[in-house]
Amino acid sequence: MPTYKAPLRDMRFVLHELLNVGEVASLPGYADATPETIDAVLEEAAKLTENELAPLNRSGDEEGCHFDNGVVRTPKGFREAYTTFIEGGWMGLACDPDHGGQGLPKVVNFVVEEMICSANLSLGTYPGLSQGAYNAINLHGTEELKALYCPKIASGLWSGTMCLTEPHSGTDLGLIRTKAEPGGDGAWRITGNKIFISAGEHDLTENIVHLVLARLPGAPEGTRGISLFLVPKFLAKEDGTVGPRNGAHCARLEHKMGIKASATCEMRFDGAAGWLIGKANKGMSAMFTMMNTARLAVGIQGLGLAEAAYQGARDYANDRLQGRALGGAKFPEKPADPIIVHPDVRRMLLTMRAYNEAARALAYWVGMKIDVAQKHPDATARQEADDFVALMTPIVKSFYTDYGFEAANLGVQIWGGHGYIRENGMEQFVRDARIAQLYEGANGIQALDLVGRKLGQGTGRLLRQFFHPVSAFIEETGADPRMGEFTFPLAKAFAKLQQATAWVAQAGMRDPVEAGAAASDYLKLFALVAFAFMWARMARLALDKTAGEDGEFYKAKLATARFFMTRLLPQHTSVFQAMMAGAAPIMELKAASF
Amino acid sequence: MPTYKAPLRDMRFVLHELLNVGEVASLPGYADATPETIDAVLEEAAKLTENELAPLNRSGDEEGCHFDNGVVRTPKGFREAYTTFIEGGWMGLACDPDHGGQGLPKVVNFVVEEMICSANLSLGTYPGLSQGAYNAINLHGTEELKALYCPKIASGLWSGTMCLTEPHSGTDLGLIRTKAEPGGDGAWRITGNKIFISAGEHDLTENIVHLVLARLPGAPEGTRGISLFLVPKFLAKEDGTVGPRNGAHCARLEHKMGIKASATCEMRFDGAAGWLIGKANKGMSAMFTMMNTARLAVGIQGLGLAEAAYQGARDYANDRLQGRALGGAKFPEKPADPIIVHPDVRRMLLTMRAYNEAARALAYWVGMKIDVAQKHPDATARQEADDFVALMTPIVKSFYTDYGFEAANLGVQIWGGHGYIRENGMEQFVRDARIAQLYEGANGIQALDLVGRKLGQGTGRLLRQFFHPVSAFIEETGADPRMGEFTFPLAKAFAKLQQATAWVAQAGMRDPVEAGAAASDYLKLFALVAFAFMWARMARLALDKTAGEDGEFYKAKLATARFFMTRLLPQHTSVFQAMMAGAAPIMELKAASF
Repeated sequence: MPTYKAPLRDMRFVLHELLNVGEVASLPGYADATPETIDAVLEEAAKLTENELAPLNRSGDEEGCHFDNGVVRTPKGFREAYTTFIEGGWMGLACDPDHGGQGLPKVVNFVVEEMICSANLSLGTYPGLSQGAYNAINLHGTEELKALYCPKIASGLWSGTMCLTEPHSGTDLGLIRTKAEPGGDGAWRITGNKIFISAGEHDLTENIVHLVLARLPGAPEGTRGISLFLVPKFLAKEDGTVGPRNGAHCARLEHKMGIKASATCEMRFDGAAGWLIGKANKGMSAMFTMMNTARLAVGIQGLGLAEAAYQGARDYANDRLQGRALGGAKFPEKPADPIIVHPDVRRMLLTMRAYNEAARALAYWVGMKIDVAQKHPDATARQEADDFVALMTPIVKSFYTDYGFEAANLGVQIWGGHGYIRENGMEQFVRDARIAQLYEGANGIQALDLVGRKLGQGTGRLLRQFFHPVSAFIEETGADPRMGEFTFPLAKAFAKLQQATAWVAQAGMRDPVEAGAAASDYLKLFALVAFAFMWARMARLALDKTAGEDGEFYKAKLATARFFMTRLLPQHTSVFQAMMAGAAPIMELKAASF
Repeated sequence: MPTYKAPLRDMRFVLHELLNVGEVASLPGYADATPETIDAVLEEAAKLTENELAPLNRSGDEEGCHFDNGVVRTPKGFREAYTTFIEGGWMGLACDPDHGGQGLPKVVNFVVEEMICSANLSLGTYPGLSQGAYNAINLHGTEELKALYCPKIASGLWSGTMCLTEPHSGTDLGLIRTKAEPGGDGAWRITGNKIFISAGEHDLTENIVHLVLARLPGAPEGTRGISLFLVPKFLAKEDGTVGPRNGAHCARLEHKMGIKASATCEMRFDGAAGWLIGKANKGMSAMFTMMNTARLAVGIQGLGLAEAAYQGARDYANDRLQGRALGGAKFPEKPADPIIVHPDVRRMLLTMRAYNEAARALAYWVGMKIDVAQKHPDATARQEADDFVALMTPIVKSFYTDYGFEAANLGVQIWGGHGYIRENGMEQFVRDARIAQLYEGANGIQALDLVGRKLGQGTGRLLRQFFHPVSAFIEETGADPRMGEFTFPLAKAFAKLQQATAWVAQAGMRDPVEAGAAASDYLKLFALVAFAFMWARMARLALDKTAGEDGEFYKAKLATARFFMTRLLPQHTSVFQAMMAGAAPIMELKAASF
């Protein structure tokens, strides 16, 4: 069974050496977030995730959740672990101090989220959904609703959900039918069925706060006629205690491929009392507050699972004796060499590692930009940071979950047949990772978001937040001979990305089908360049430190950077070529001929 | 739930139009295998797999096998379906008429195997293992053993297994410890533990014939000291009935990610009576008779599951209404358009389809070559066909199972969140497909087999069986302007493959680690060129037939060929680049730094 250890050294490298996370302490409200405090928080988070959450991952999957007549029971140990989690104040880590939260920067929350996802993704979904609900209520709710619900959610005593999908309406939310009718008492009456509701019902909290998309009477058709409602499981009394049961019930639990300890519910709203969040018919915009948080969080799920799979595969590759090194036995005294001597095993491990470390660097960079976007005193700085986050959200959601699934599978592959056995824990990462490519907008939808909305916004305004730093970096380092092996491949791939961007913009203007046909390949090209940029930046830092006391760490960074540039980045040439072939070969075949 | 329909039209296209399968009827012993007979067999196989096997696939996965004190029970309906299967004579389809088999060509068996794997992979593992055991006994057993066991296995009344792996010995069979000691009665006494034994114990047959690797007393260390034994569950009486229970017992069932209805057993041999198959200490070579059959069969598992996933995804894409076509509503009268209008959905479907149809063509070509290798009167023709099969075996095993897993995942992706729900049947294809990349030699081992053994054999003798026809085809079609869009990309990719081959041969001679580091990418490059060749050949045929009565079929072939050439074949550029980066970026990182 793989044993999770939070990669604190690499996390600190990214936060302190690469990103200078200390800068967030200069933002209003974050004065306490010094590097020392951040490190202390991360050390505590490591203990929590390693000792309390990770040990329940395998048993939680095997046992799953139980459903009995509307009541959902989480697997053995989950209640205790969740209690430990909220008693440590982890739910409120990034919540407002006004609501009892710790008010730490979002970037710190990202790091903790990575650890939680590595340790126990299913358990992590419960507080994860609460986070989204908290943000939506905090940003769009009335003062009364905020006062009543936000402290409860920040404490973890109550949890939250996002109730969007209906059986006939997933990607296309314009089709939803759940109705909201005036209740005559200030509240609305919500009626309808929702499916795929994570944490829709469970035994971890005393109340559950559903955020539900529904239509007001006479609302316009499609997404312009959707409103967002807060629908508690138990009505909240003014003193913050729970009152009578509301008409929001779990009708069944889904049987899923993975995240089996996360309760995925079909919810029936039967004239349940609900309160409007944000404006009438503007539910989609309030919903996107949750959704954007959730999309980044889902990307981090990909990273977290890939890190856990990497650790499990690395340990196995060092332990498992099988065959001899191709150049001759490395450990002749043993019956066989550990399989880490084999180039193909190393290739798989390095693939996982090179993706993970770039993904971590980019994710935390995005996390810091969220803090700037929310707290910076200067409006331009806020807008620019927000543009960067908006641009990167589909890339983080989609590419991290795609590579995360690939990495989880490489983990199984390194374990060979033993990786296929449930008790060994590696195949669970694959099953758990698979959902992340699907929920919060399937990855194809992310690609459409990138090419259809993010590229064009403000005639490329968002794009500049990534393209400018890359150009500047290439210019700065182009003359440094030590950087050639990193800057040169980055520059080559970046040139392709610029060419592809111009092509998508022009072709997509002519025919949106062209943009749609290019979208997934374009997103992958973009992600590879973004990872190459992070690797080039990390390599530049590492070059000067290989002689120091932690020299092996920096040598490993350089070796991994070289692997990325020579062995993974070349994928950009083929996705570029595939994309540039245009829509014709995709659209030619008649639907009836498939 | 996906519904399987055997793709008979495409199967007939490959067999009759592309490969002229009628030619096998001119081989000694295959006179009855006329095109008409083959078609009739395939139509019956379609009925069997669609109506008897496919309906048990989902329930078999959900129920799994049951273990109780050494006894294994297969899921509900499996016994009845297996009985129907053997009563129809399907077990003996390609077995010797001397043993009661139907003596049909192997290529016909390949087609039926594809159908079985699409319909119910778990159920298919039982006869699949029997086939391997049959071949090993038939080729290497004594006349007495053949007479006693082959008819029983060919009839399906008894089944077979391959007992190779031990807990500490998987890829590295040189480490096995199972012992064979003289029994004093002509038989040997086999003692040891084997794991991951598919069909090791079950309730489908009255007897199970284990083929077990073990060491004789004083045998040389490593793979040169391994012998193969036949160890029946019940001793066979001379009249062909079952006698006393032998000391071969199932100690436990594995809990796996998938193929849950296939009983994967830990077997304890406790002084069990066994008979030598082949010569003492030459067990590896006899074992490879089974293994090579099994490797091709596992490749076909990838194809079969990918075909089933394609059908499930295609039907869903035509049914599921969600969103509108990017160029404007296609079905304004419906609440939304079917998702097959979306370029990204079509891209995924075409990826599955383009791989499947090329894989089918190549697999059946390999199947025909097996028939030539076994039956052709001319020794050179036999050798050349055998060379082709040996060359293609690692490619079929590895690339088919890799793309098959990818295709199964694309099937889930097209279903969105609904693909993650077990009842819908799509995620099972993913879990079932995952094993095929692992068993019968993990895919990295296949790649080493290709570069380390197959390339160099007879200074490239095997290679010529593929390179010559490709060169000839390029020459023949290079001047045909209608073929330019197919021949030109094939020629470009083939040039890269030739360059890569020379590089691997030279670099590998200098340092075997270089060959090992190149192996997986080289195999993928090879497979892409092989698929491009099949597509170019199929396109050439289709070009002349688009005006005929089945014109839409040939138009679809051309559209899919174009998709392959423009959207999938470009992957060859990046695997070529990655490979040519050499071993250094893979070997630099210290084992302790991972």
